[in-house]
Amino acid sequence: MQLEQQIISWRRDFHRFPEQGFLEMRTASIVANILESLGYDLKLGKEVMKEDECMGKPTAEKTRQHVEWARENGAVERFLPHFEEGFTGIVATMDTKRPGPTVAFRVDMDALPILESDTEQHVPMSLDFRSTAEGSMHACGHDAHTSIGLGLATMLAGNQDKLNGVIKLIFQPAEEGTRGAKAMARAGVVDDVDYFVASHIGTGVPQHHFVAANNGFLATTKLNITFTGKAAHAGSEPEVGKNALLAAASATLNMHAICRHSGGDSRINVGELHAGSGRNVIANHATMIAETRGETSEVNDYMKEQVKNIVAGAAQMYGTDYTIETAGEAVSAKCSDDLAKRLGKIAEQHSFIEKVMITSEDSAGSEDATYFLESVQQHGGQATYCIFGTDLAAGHHHECFDINEDTLLPAVEILFETAIELSHSNRNEVK
Amino acid sequence: MQLEQQIISWRRDFHRFPEQGFLEMRTASIVANILESLGYDLKLGKEVMKEDECMGKPTAEKTRQHVEWARENGAVERFLPHFEEGFTGIVATMDTKRPGPTVAFRVDMDALPILESDTEQHVPMSLDFRSTAEGSMHACGHDAHTSIGLGLATMLAGNQDKLNGVIKLIFQPAEEGTRGAKAMARAGVVDDVDYFVASHIGTGVPQHHFVAANNGFLATTKLNITFTGKAAHAGSEPEVGKNALLAAASATLNMHAICRHSGGDSRINVGELHAGSGRNVIANHATMIAETRGETSEVNDYMKEQVKNIVAGAAQMYGTDYTIETAGEAVSAKCSDDLAKRLGKIAEQHSFIEKVMITSEDSAGSEDATYFLESVQQHGGQATYCIFGTDLAAGHHHECFDINEDTLLPAVEILFETAIELSHSNRNEVK
Amino acid sequence: MQLEQQIISWRRDFHRFPEQGFLEMRTASIVANILESLGYDLKLGKEVMKEDECMGKPTAEKTRQHVEWARENGAVERFLPHFEEGFTGIVATMDTKRPGPTVAFRVDMDALPILESDTEQHVPMSLDFRSTAEGSMHACGHDAHTSIGLGLATMLAGNQDKLNGVIKLIFQPAEEGTRGAKAMARAGVVDDVDYFVASHIGTGVPQHHFVAANNGFLATTKLNITFTGKAAHAGSEPEVGKNALLAAASATLNMHAICRHSGGDSRINVGELHAGSGRNVIANHATMIAETRGETSEVNDYMKEQVKNIVAGAAQMYGTDYTIETAGEAVSAKCSDDLAKRLGKIAEQHSFIEKVMITSEDSAGSEDATYFLESVQQHGGQATYCIFGTDLAAGHHHECFDINEDTLLPAVEILFETAIELSHSNRNEVK
Amino acid sequence: MQLEQQIISWRRDFHRFPEQGFLEMRTASIVANILESLGYDLKLGKEVMKEDECMGKPTAEKTRQHVEWARENGAVERFLPHFEEGFTGIVATMDTKRPGPTVAFRVDMDALPILESDTEQHVPMSLDFRSTAEGSMHACGHDAHTSIGLGLATMLAGNQDKLNGVIKLIFQPAEEGTRGAKAMARAGVVDDVDYFVASHIGTGVPQHHFVAANNGFLATTKLNITFTGKAAHAGSEPEVGKNALLAAASATLNMHAICRHSGGDSRINVGELHAGSGRNVIANHATMIAETRGETSEVNDYMKEQVKNIVAGAAQMYGTDYTIETAGEAVSAKCSDDLAKRLGKIAEQHSFIEKVMITSEDSAGSEDATYFLESVQQHGGQATYCIFGTDLAAGHHHECFDINEDTLLPAVEILFETAIELSHSNRNEVK
Repeated sequence: MQLEQQIISWRRDFHRFPEQGFLEMRTASIVANILESLGYDLKLGKEVMKEDECMGKPTAEKTRQHVEWARENGAVERFLPHFEEGFTGIVATMDTKRPGPTVAFRVDMDALPILESDTEQHVPMSLDFRSTAEGSMHACGHDAHTSIGLGLATMLAGNQDKLNGVIKLIFQPAEEGTRGAKAMARAGVVDDVDYFVASHIGTGVPQHHFVAANNGFLATTKLNITFTGKAAHAGSEPEVGKNALLAAASATLNMHAICRHSGGDSRINVGELHAGSGRNVIANHATMIAETRGETSEVNDYMKEQVKNIVAGAAQMYGTDYTIETAGEAVSAKCSDDLAKRLGKIAEQHSFIEKVMITSEDSAGSEDATYFLESVQQHGGQATYCIFGTDLAAGHHHECFDINEDTLLPAVEILFETAIELSHSNRNEVK
Repeated sequence: MQLEQQIISWRRDFHRFPEQGFLEMRTASIVANILESLGYDLKLGKEVMKEDECMGKPTAEKTRQHVEWARENGAVERFLPHFEEGFTGIVATMDTKRPGPTVAFRVDMDALPILESDTEQHVPMSLDFRSTAEGSMHACGHDAHTSIGLGLATMLAGNQDKLNGVIKLIFQPAEEGTRGAKAMARAGVVDDVDYFVASHIGTGVPQHHFVAANNGFLATTKLNITFTGKAAHAGSEPEVGKNALLAAASATLNMHAICRHSGGDSRINVGELHAGSGRNVIANHATMIAETRGETSEVNDYMKEQVKNIVAGAAQMYGTDYTIETAGEAVSAKCSDDLAKRLGKIAEQHSFIEKVMITSEDSAGSEDATYFLESVQQHGGQATYCIFGTDLAAGHHHECFDINEDTLLPAVEILFETAIELSHSNRNEVK
Repeated sequence: MQLEQQIISWRRDFHRFPEQGFLEMRTASIVANILESLGYDLKLGKEVMKEDECMGKPTAEKTRQHVEWARENGAVERFLPHFEEGFTGIVATMDTKRPGPTVAFRVDMDALPILESDTEQHVPMSLDFRSTAEGSMHACGHDAHTSIGLGLATMLAGNQDKLNGVIKLIFQPAEEGTRGAKAMARAGVVDDVDYFVASHIGTGVPQHHFVAANNGFLATTKLNITFTGKAAHAGSEPEVGKNALLAAASATLNMHAICRHSGGDSRINVGELHAGSGRNVIANHATMIAETRGETSEVNDYMKEQVKNIVAGAAQMYGTDYTIETAGEAVSAKCSDDLAKRLGKIAEQHSFIEKVMITSEDSAGSEDATYFLESVQQHGGQATYCIFGTDLAAGHHHECFDINEDTLLPAVEILFETAIELSHSNRNEVK
Repeated sequence: MQLEQQIISWRRDFHRFPEQGFLEMRTASIVANILESLGYDLKLGKEVMKEDECMGKPTAEKTRQHVEWARENGAVERFLPHFEEGFTGIVATMDTKRPGPTVAFRVDMDALPILESDTEQHVPMSLDFRSTAEGSMHACGHDAHTSIGLGLATMLAGNQDKLNGVIKLIFQPAEEGTRGAKAMARAGVVDDVDYFVASHIGTGVPQHHFVAANNGFLATTKLNITFTGKAAHAGSEPEVGKNALLAAASATLNMHAICRHSGGDSRINVGELHAGSGRNVIANHATMIAETRGETSEVNDYMKEQVKNIVAGAAQMYGTDYTIETAGEAVSAKCSDDLAKRLGKIAEQHSFIEKVMITSEDSAGSEDATYFLESVQQHGGQATYCIFGTDLAAGHHHECFDINEDTLLPAVEILFETAIELSHSNRNEVK
């Protein structure tokens, strides 16, 4: 089973060299190199990403430093110029020149700011592919996703004669924090897509199970908020200060008091608050790291709007300046029923799959693949987000997270069968 | 001692017919009538009050209703036209035509919204001069002040040949809530005054004691604040509401959190908060009754400024409208040392007085006579605020408050001696 | 159509004499009198209500006063002793002595504290059955419910030979504010019931439509909260006070900030806040009128628990005492599917009904009939809550609320057909 | 002027090797060595410090590490065992064996956590005695104080025959943050003292000026507060969390809203707040660094008590645990008038002094020497806190802070003259 070995090998390599969002330069350069060698037409970096729609991008300095790291750790030099500013998206296209629909698959590539476990029970440790970038870790399975994407690319390239229409493979940066998809969707990369499939591994779905449509994603906005006031000695002239810490405390309390919405679930969290520079100093600076969520984009927009009003109001109360930066965002989306059912049938026929669930509403997390789903559906296409169950050594985002690699090849094969079937659809069925 | 009987009689009459701030129509008409008969030149109502500097005036409707009450209860009809819109101030002038300084005295006339005790131990009850206006009561001694003012007017009129210069008697409305003095001071009634004496009875100073200069008054601002939002059903569409109750709660908390000021004592109090119109309705209205104070006007201005910022900020947080009305205000003031010492010496010589204190810093209350002090001093004159000690049956603003009437005549006599002495001062001493 | 005239006549009579929760003495005495005359066995007042489970009962004084009003306005004197303490529930039983299930129907009888419109467009005004009790109004249709209950009682009594088993008619007080049902459910009045049907008129369902099962009710708790602190002069010794207003403001803000629950929708509202007794007094008393809601009882219990912690915490912050009184409560409940489908079929066959909806999730309001549903289902029975659509002149709880009386007879007939069919069910089908 | 060179040399040495509170091991060992060589009896470390009254002590680990640093940077090895646990206080006694009072002087030795300026304009940089311990700096002049103490010790030792009674020199650790004095005062080191003089350099007093009694110190308490809650995913199960960040925000707001006190000035500051561990995690930990102050110890105690109630209340609101640690504390104190006047006279006679101010109320800072003043006065002695004016290159606690070394010798000489004069007092004058 040569392909399986290849996929596992890729996955372990990516796992050893994890790269966080908008820094996937080594990963993207290797992916691009392989896709090019398989004959795909490539569009890279800013060609497929709307620059000002990237959210929560690392600083230029951090980005520059990471280019060096990538170079030293096996990046394919030839492709680095496309990615070195941190625009690390790839769209690979195979045009069969035969009539037929455009079918797209999305995978994500980024890692998390987590220090990977170094205990012997942790398989990546014992099998020697633990992260070499201390403090970064593929703790959500995007290493597996990238490898599945390359495996799918390989199978499709070897079976081009069985396909019609156009195949698009989308490798997205910065899914963590819901930061990267919007820039690609707004660049129009799926505007011409008839069928779109995003996929994830794990998420609590058991090994040998398959979910054809995950509908539970909440719309979300990630907000970085600062208050800047004026320092003063808290004993001798406190009234001279402009208390940024108090502004932040008041904003926090009132943000959590935002009224519930009858249109569906909402969430608000000020996850971090850091303020002040000394016990006896009126705090002149405060930083808040927050997020809103909503069962629908409308509910999330309502939450975000309230946050803005509250932050502005708190600043006015205490005479401080403030900034609100959108550091990530995702809309809500519903999968296309027909497409989900077709995927379900294809998956049922694979020997690895024991149980298929057409739709799930389970998650209360968020995913920015929803931007792609939204765009595809707005342009008349069908889109779904499916999940390949797998055994997890520990939950997502845990330092001991690990998957069962047995899932990788079946995932590739099901997506391949999906491509075959969808490419033979009559486009008019869709639009 | 015919004058003493007259003073007591006046006092009991005013006590029976108490009138709250800007409604002293009966009182003022009687005062004006007496002063006119004594030969004083009178300026009345809007002649001596700047209309738009009146604070916390009752509604036109309430004012109209009170005219009727005054008419039915012994007001001097001839003077009512001057006072019927609620501008109830009086300035009575006696010009000796002889060179000499202008000496002014201020008394206040208004009552409080208190239901007077009807127990037999309460002297006004047993002696049958309890308030006939249920819910209004002279519980601070302004009935005594008005009578002292008339007694002083009487003595001065009978001794005009002993006086030089000009005498001014100022009868002020609405001292309670510090609402009336500013309108008279801003109308310029003391701009030409060389010596100014305001006085109060009681305030914890014992019978037979005299304080020549009370310096402890805090500057203050009385604020009526409203938030107007939008009602909505709290179960079915809460997000449609604009929560005025939450805006008020947040404003309240942040107002009390206003930073201390190194320039001196400050105070803040939201004394009342009323909001909402039903358990299951997002509250669309909230009313707050608040006050700030400061050891100096600067500190009080700082407090007031913060309140404004906070109220505006809270409204922005919750998307409500808001109003802030100044319902009363007083500045801080320091008595003129020289004048205080002269008063002290005069008082010492009166047989009724056993102990004289030149200055006291005791009170943490407020008084709007400070506007007169400030104006006089700004124009180069001297001013003081003195206190005639008296036995109190209960504290000021208590339903059983009562004074010892023995204090009335000595108070008149000391003020009279003061007028005599000051009227013979060389004006250049002052300015 | 003699019965229809009778039902309308009853409804207009009840409309003219509206009685609020736990004060339905006139209504209940008339209902009891009619039911008795129809041959039902009656259990009244405390026989069918657990005294200490009544929530938000009016004071003894107010209750006594209302007895007089009821007596003067047509109450049936003979029954007043059962109701005069405000326990105004009735359970009327007809035992056919034939084997068969126990089938129960619930109607509610109370009015709202609303001043009814007196415009000529308002039908109760023009047809002369507007409320004679100013400030009370049947603005939710419970007058219609009571009449429907009496109409049903009449039809059942006239057709006893067509019935098996036992029929129970439950007339509940104080549904408004979800205060009365719990006391009857806890008294066990539905513990032996196999089929239970509660019904409502209107609620946005159009005329000629029928909803067999309304599942959208939120669990709710109505809370009256007080803080008692200590008054002090805000200028001279503020630190002596214990600020109940601040405790309430802080509690309010933190209550609204209670964390969302992943188990379903939640609601929180402090609908009213009244605190303080003067601008310059540290407030020593505050009253809050609040409610929580939850998509499930678990979620509502979570909200209630947080409120308790927050109120206790706020009291600790400010050194005040506090009380929390449960002034109303309702659980969540889901209707029994089988029963709903049977009701749907029966309704479909009635000529008045044009459209049947088996289940609706629409409402975000609350209803304490859920206590009956819960008890019946816990004892193995089936229960549902159905809605008879009707034209509304204005929304529920509006001063111009009015129904289309054409709906009344069909509602009686559908419930009658339901009783007939259910009474012939095999009890084993249920349990 | 050999002594002056010595004092300056000491001062520059201490400046080069600054040690923060409870870590003054090198400093104390050098001081002890010199004092021993001068013939003083020494009591060291825990002999003169009550262990459990030390506040805000560094961790054992940090203390251990600093021992090594001290050893490597010139500490006198022989004395390190007394100080190595961080109890770095010294009391040096000279008993003349002649009758007479006990006269004590206090100096402090600790540095601040400030990175010293490295610009050439900064004299310690250009003259090569800038701090070698990066991040620690003598930015308040305690290096000068220690040198003055050693200079005074030297002069006294050389003039023992001119003295009567007993001389005590107290070298105190950790004055910054008001952490060290209480432990020495509670150990009783000044219980037998008849005259006590603490001194400071600078503080805004001009060069050649002398303040004999500084009375403006506010009582203060430094509080470290933590809330420990429970983390949870903010999207999928937020209700499982216990939100420590919200508890801290609510505590902060309510702490700043603590009611003003009529007994005098108060202060409250939450200077730093750090909470949370990720945007999408309910924060399970929060740390607050706060302080209260009061014009009197009573006012400060009131503030501290309110803080405790508020923190406990906030924890109850959010179901978190909490801790409150006292990290520093100082009482208020008034200098003894008689002693101040004597000091004033002595200073006047020194040629360096151009202006003497007997008492100043200026500062709104705090000082824990007040514990010594309080103890001495409670035992019947007299105590004062004097200030030697000096030119400052920048304000205290500024990275460019520097003094004018010309002030050092006059300060020593004035304190020496004070010792001479006081030692000849009749003890009965005092007690």
